[in-house]
Amino acid sequence: MPSVIYPGTFDPITFGHIDVIQRAARLFGHVIVAVAENSSKNSVFTHVERTEMARLALQSVAGVRVVGFNGLLVDFAAQHQAHTVIRGLRAVSDFEYEMQLAAINRRLDARIETVFMTPAENLNFLSSTLVREIARLGGDVSEFVPSNVVAALRAKFR
Amino acid sequence: MPSVIYPGTFDPITFGHIDVIQRAARLFGHVIVAVAENSSKNSVFTHVERTEMARLALQSVAGVRVVGFNGLLVDFAAQHQAHTVIRGLRAVSDFEYEMQLAAINRRLDARIETVFMTPAENLNFLSSTLVREIARLGGDVSEFVPSNVVAALRAKFR
Amino acid sequence: MPSVIYPGTFDPITFGHIDVIQRAARLFGHVIVAVAENSSKNSVFTHVERTEMARLALQSVAGVRVVGFNGLLVDFAAQHQAHTVIRGLRAVSDFEYEMQLAAINRRLDARIETVFMTPAENLNFLSSTLVREIARLGGDVSEFVPSNVVAALRAKFR
Amino acid sequence: MPSVIYPGTFDPITFGHIDVIQRAARLFGHVIVAVAENSSKNSVFTHVERTEMARLALQSVAGVRVVGFNGLLVDFAAQHQAHTVIRGLRAVSDFEYEMQLAAINRRLDARIETVFMTPAENLNFLSSTLVREIARLGGDVSEFVPSNVVAALRAKFR
Amino acid sequence: MPSVIYPGTFDPITFGHIDVIQRAARLFGHVIVAVAENSSKNSVFTHVERTEMARLALQSVAGVRVVGFNGLLVDFAAQHQAHTVIRGLRAVSDFEYEMQLAAINRRLDARIETVFMTPAENLNFLSSTLVREIARLGGDVSEFVPSNVVAALRAKFR
Amino acid sequence: MPSVIYPGTFDPITFGHIDVIQRAARLFGHVIVAVAENSSKNSVFTHVERTEMARLALQSVAGVRVVGFNGLLVDFAAQHQAHTVIRGLRAVSDFEYEMQLAAINRRLDARIETVFMTPAENLNFLSSTLVREIARLGGDVSEFVPSNVVAALRAKFR
Repeated sequence: MPSVIYPGTFDPITFGHIDVIQRAARLFGHVIVAVAENSSKNSVFTHVERTEMARLALQSVAGVRVVGFNGLLVDFAAQHQAHTVIRGLRAVSDFEYEMQLAAINRRLDARIETVFMTPAENLNFLSSTLVREIARLGGDVSEFVPSNVVAALRAKFR
Repeated sequence: MPSVIYPGTFDPITFGHIDVIQRAARLFGHVIVAVAENSSKNSVFTHVERTEMARLALQSVAGVRVVGFNGLLVDFAAQHQAHTVIRGLRAVSDFEYEMQLAAINRRLDARIETVFMTPAENLNFLSSTLVREIARLGGDVSEFVPSNVVAALRAKFR
Repeated sequence: MPSVIYPGTFDPITFGHIDVIQRAARLFGHVIVAVAENSSKNSVFTHVERTEMARLALQSVAGVRVVGFNGLLVDFAAQHQAHTVIRGLRAVSDFEYEMQLAAINRRLDARIETVFMTPAENLNFLSSTLVREIARLGGDVSEFVPSNVVAALRAKFR
Repeated sequence: MPSVIYPGTFDPITFGHIDVIQRAARLFGHVIVAVAENSSKNSVFTHVERTEMARLALQSVAGVRVVGFNGLLVDFAAQHQAHTVIRGLRAVSDFEYEMQLAAINRRLDARIETVFMTPAENLNFLSSTLVREIARLGGDVSEFVPSNVVAALRAKFR
Repeated sequence: MPSVIYPGTFDPITFGHIDVIQRAARLFGHVIVAVAENSSKNSVFTHVERTEMARLALQSVAGVRVVGFNGLLVDFAAQHQAHTVIRGLRAVSDFEYEMQLAAINRRLDARIETVFMTPAENLNFLSSTLVREIARLGGDVSEFVPSNVVAALRAKFR
Repeated sequence: MPSVIYPGTFDPITFGHIDVIQRAARLFGHVIVAVAENSSKNSVFTHVERTEMARLALQSVAGVRVVGFNGLLVDFAAQHQAHTVIRGLRAVSDFEYEMQLAAINRRLDARIETVFMTPAENLNFLSSTLVREIARLGGDVSEFVPSNVVAALRAKFR
């Protein structure tokens, strides 16, 4: 069975992302976590930092490979012969944007199939944006992100 | 790789359902289309009719088996050793109900994983309810459902 | 300029409907209010009652004609050479269903164009369902529907 | 401080309702749980059954009184001199209907203030409809409703 | 009864905010309006300006105190012994973000209870963003914000 | 019949915009495409570039005039004696913002009527944001925008 791709910015990776990745790995056997360079958004962490944080956080999850990429997702998918894209769904607002992305990716490459999974309920409210905001204000984020990310956020906002 | 289940009422099966089933079959190799008895809703077609219509409509799709069931989906899943449930997502209103169902099914059996797929864009507006309504009013539904369903609807609403 | 159609069940007509009709009449010059027979829904008022109530309520609005119809909206539109359909939008839940209807009507007849208008803000919360429920429980609905409808509701729920 | 009202059909009461009631009791000191007769909906349990189930389920929660009512909520509120209405919010679809209800209740009586609270996350997916459906199909609902309701559902669907 | 907190950026305070504050003051007796420093968003007005504008606008509303704060809301709440947070709800998009915030605040401090209220219907469309945009383009915002804010906006965009 | 206005940023104009403009021109006879200067958003193209791109893309559509504007839409409308505003609706998130805008424009000038139209289904997922993002990453956007815009995007992102 071919690999599936879980793309994102991961600024930073959270327990919500990790939960979806573990479910996808269980279901599909192998997941490529694709960390987008995403130069148009102002990320707090650099592309290298985001990729390394995800790699460290996922090193013990079997069947997962973390890869940085820039350019179009459909080109990355073609290059890795992996045409199934996994996306996590939490809220209605996610949902609409995801539907748009899925439609446009199918347009750009008809082989691309987007499959949506949901994190555990108690992770449903989590987002990288909220985690960054709490960390920036000095709050404790150890319930929301792995310990290497806790440390990285602390270093960033000191 | 184990089978996945695509449950529904299929009152009647539409090209939107069939599109999702084909995508799931391509992705997972084998799909059990599970036609729910659903005695609480007033369906236009009987359980036997809905199951037979789906079977006929899907007979040429490789890797698909159509099975009627009553009782809980989680029991059906356990019995078939198939813990992945496929659901189609079209609209925001679908989405919320599906999130509830996915959460409660996980509660009833933690092994259940719900995976969402989207039909082709031009089928996004389709629903069994709209198809029944058009057929009831004498409209042409041959663009929306397979020919055996067209005939069944014509017979039902004569 | 050709007529536009404002279809609905009008069970019963409310000040929300009337506001949209007045805006449409101002914009397009002439509006055909098309009262659907809608035999699949259990309406509180009969088709004749709903049509008559709408007619009475709108008799002083210039450029408006009230017509009962059964069958498909696209057939009604073709018959009246009126391919523009007006629909009121209040809530997100309305919106999705309306998008589905607009898409399927375009499929059934490519000439059909659906145009959405919004009632005045203070009528945004109104619905025939809520009005019927309040009237059924003996509440005063004179702020929500015209006087002939107030009387009809009182007679119905006595 | 005056009482607040938590109205509903409670067909049957779930741990989601009870969680909101406990939060409201903590916040406002006293809550009147108002079980609507709601003759227009087809409830599974009778008005008396629903009221008694709620009473039993809430007997150990301090500051809560369960009262059956029919008629308009605004009349019930006036009669109990309790103009604050509590409603639970879970999903977007809830939200819109609740906004409509809150707006119309303010129209019917300007003193009415609707205040929304949310249940604990892990109860967010719960609804009386889903509980009834699972019980009807023979599933275990003891995680979702109190033991007296489990027994009542079992008796009803035997 | 303990105070409740109404937090926000108030860039600038509008009649929509003031309406919710007045309702909350009526219901809970005392409201702390907490103006967030919010250094991550680019606000048009400084923290001091936003706090002063809110103070002036609310000086005649009984039971209201305006306080600037930075840091986490849960820390502010603990410091003021005020564990009830009031938030206004207008649209579905508000709603989802608010549900996330309420969930994460409960996680950070289990005592925090978020309670949602709705402004009067005719203020439902108002937002600080729209007000700033209109003022920036030279439009008249005197129907949307108090006179001291009208003056501040005029000074800012001259 | 008076002109209608189709306002937007058009950064850049897409086939989704053009589809709505063509439908509006067919329905209302004449459409003023009003390209907003929109100095608060960071647009990729300048106001002049956006206006020129739209003009070139629409030069063969009968009944369409492209005009740049700054200031309030209601002032532009008054100046052109065109009080009907056309807006395209795709998604729920569009919808809510559009309802806010329509409400506030009615407040600023009671003559303004906003009318919503929907693009063809296969253009429903399109947005200027997605087009810019794909072009920035070197993707082929010729299915989504006219050839003059393809060339302009290529020049911009070289």
